[in-house]
Amino acid sequence: MKTSSKLLSTLFLSLIFVLAGCSSSPNPGTSTANQPAATAAADPLPSWNDGSAKQAIVDFVKATTAKNSPKFVAAEDRIATFDQDGTTWVEQPIYSQVLFAFDRVAEMAPQHPEWKTKMPFKAIVTGDREAMAKFTLKDIEVIAMATHTGMTAEAFGPLVQDWMAKAKHPKFDKPYPQMVYQPMLEVMKYLRDNGYKTYIVTGGGQDFVRAYAQQVYGIPPEQIIGSALDTQYEYNKDGQGILMRDPKLLLNNNGAGKAEDIYLFIGKRPHAAFGNTDGARQMLEYTQAGSGASLEMLVLHDDATREFAYGPAQGLPDTKVGTFPQSLYDEAKAKGWTVISMKNDWKQIFAWQK
Amino acid sequence: MKTSSKLLSTLFLSLIFVLAGCSSSPNPGTSTANQPAATAAADPLPSWNDGSAKQAIVDFVKATTAKNSPKFVAAEDRIATFDQDGTTWVEQPIYSQVLFAFDRVAEMAPQHPEWKTKMPFKAIVTGDREAMAKFTLKDIEVIAMATHTGMTAEAFGPLVQDWMAKAKHPKFDKPYPQMVYQPMLEVMKYLRDNGYKTYIVTGGGQDFVRAYAQQVYGIPPEQIIGSALDTQYEYNKDGQGILMRDPKLLLNNNGAGKAEDIYLFIGKRPHAAFGNTDGARQMLEYTQAGSGASLEMLVLHDDATREFAYGPAQGLPDTKVGTFPQSLYDEAKAKGWTVISMKNDWKQIFAWQK
Repeated sequence: MKTSSKLLSTLFLSLIFVLAGCSSSPNPGTSTANQPAATAAADPLPSWNDGSAKQAIVDFVKATTAKNSPKFVAAEDRIATFDQDGTTWVEQPIYSQVLFAFDRVAEMAPQHPEWKTKMPFKAIVTGDREAMAKFTLKDIEVIAMATHTGMTAEAFGPLVQDWMAKAKHPKFDKPYPQMVYQPMLEVMKYLRDNGYKTYIVTGGGQDFVRAYAQQVYGIPPEQIIGSALDTQYEYNKDGQGILMRDPKLLLNNNGAGKAEDIYLFIGKRPHAAFGNTDGARQMLEYTQAGSGASLEMLVLHDDATREFAYGPAQGLPDTKVGTFPQSLYDEAKAKGWTVISMKNDWKQIFAWQK
Repeated sequence: MKTSSKLLSTLFLSLIFVLAGCSSSPNPGTSTANQPAATAAADPLPSWNDGSAKQAIVDFVKATTAKNSPKFVAAEDRIATFDQDGTTWVEQPIYSQVLFAFDRVAEMAPQHPEWKTKMPFKAIVTGDREAMAKFTLKDIEVIAMATHTGMTAEAFGPLVQDWMAKAKHPKFDKPYPQMVYQPMLEVMKYLRDNGYKTYIVTGGGQDFVRAYAQQVYGIPPEQIIGSALDTQYEYNKDGQGILMRDPKLLLNNNGAGKAEDIYLFIGKRPHAAFGNTDGARQMLEYTQAGSGASLEMLVLHDDATREFAYGPAQGLPDTKVGTFPQSLYDEAKAKGWTVISMKNDWKQIFAWQK
């Protein structure tokens, strides 16, 4: 585990640049809020088109759960891990957590009059996107720590929940809990219905995701593994034990950190792993290197019409947010991992989208 | 979380001194191996004598699980945490993990001819207890890291399991899996039967305890939180992803670390917590400071005949292994925590003991 203070830096990073040029033209599509996908009944994956990706999931579940199967996996070893941003919900044009941090700066500004003249806060408070585009890593760290620390552990979750209830995606004009991919919700449920324990293993903040994961994914806090800040045990004025959020990164749950933290938290290798970027590479490798059957899947964002198109794998537009490099695509092909084409494999992306 | 390299140091610490003077006269008692406690049926805690400790457990479970109870705790919040050494199994005359490390040195010695002349290994290899009594913290760290690191994550568990199968307790001459406290197994099962999720939260090594916890406690690896070493993601000669155990402490799960790591791993406060030393103090405080009903219990080792007697609380003999200071006893009394007297509250300590 790298404990260098890079978590949110990585997150915020170049998003700043994206944000600086980000068009936020709302284009909500046909909203039929939260409708259950149409042709359910027998098909556990109704939002998936028939094809090799859907087939890989069904084959894997059948092979690992049928009692007489040579690939049978014992119930206690049925672990499935999902990256979040870009895998289970939208990450373009910038990660939700970055928007949260910027909105926090705006919200906290009245209590910080000094921010009006103090960079990097000044840039956000005054909406100076040109200045934001020049943020250094250090600036970004300062913003992350100022907005994510200094409160008790228990006070942080409600801040996230409030934001989730009101913030809207800049392109789709929907609250973030509606920006989850319906096909991935179906995979999670299908796996759980077959005895798999589903985990989110995210480069994003562990406590950020824990604040809404039960509502959005049906996954409890103890099954959310993410980048994590240190906490300090202290006593409040009543002498009660509290945990204060410290401006120090404890776990950087990205790349190799995902494999390392899966071991730290679960102590077992997953049998199924889902990602969409370089940051999930080691998690998929680690999953495949375990004994017995495994399923490795990568989401390729190739649907500019219904979501976003970015790679640069397969000639898709390059991006610094959720990069899917050609080398990852090639590794997937060489190792038998399944690349999910959002355009071809997903009948429906969001529950409210026709 | 303190990430100073003190975990095993703390463990090994003064045990060396204890070991140096440790009498290992076997005194097995009447062994009737693993017999289920006699008067089960209706009573979920048959190894407990009637009294305030047993009553506190039963009252807590009833109050938090009866649907119409004002103290009802939702199923997803039923978390119970147990320290291990001295709480769920024997820790005197020295922690099992220390014996494991010393036995590992002996076992590894043929591959390390230099240890014959190199301290601190020489002291162990030659059985020089006088020299061992002079070990510095640095020596102890060197032993811990030499015996617990340098292998893959997956290779470590079997080493522990092998040791557990053959090593015997110096006083009772039983393998360690039989040195578990029958009354605590009953509490764990009783809690689980009532919807509680039981966790071990130990100052000992997380991977050490995970290696046998399913067998000994019926608790899966992901519910074992302990002091943890760093791992490094690497590739083996076949290009497969592996995790190597690194000689670097990541989590020191003792004292404040227990509360911090409970938050890190579970994201919720426990409603019940069990310990027996200063190292569990903050876990109990943190539990009690949560909202709703809670149960805090401390095991007092006051039974020299059937187990060991040590404190120094309540005038019991002082010890550096599993110290229960008077200040902890006083805090327990002031805050309404229950102190379990092994002598008076436990009808039976070990399953094989009459």
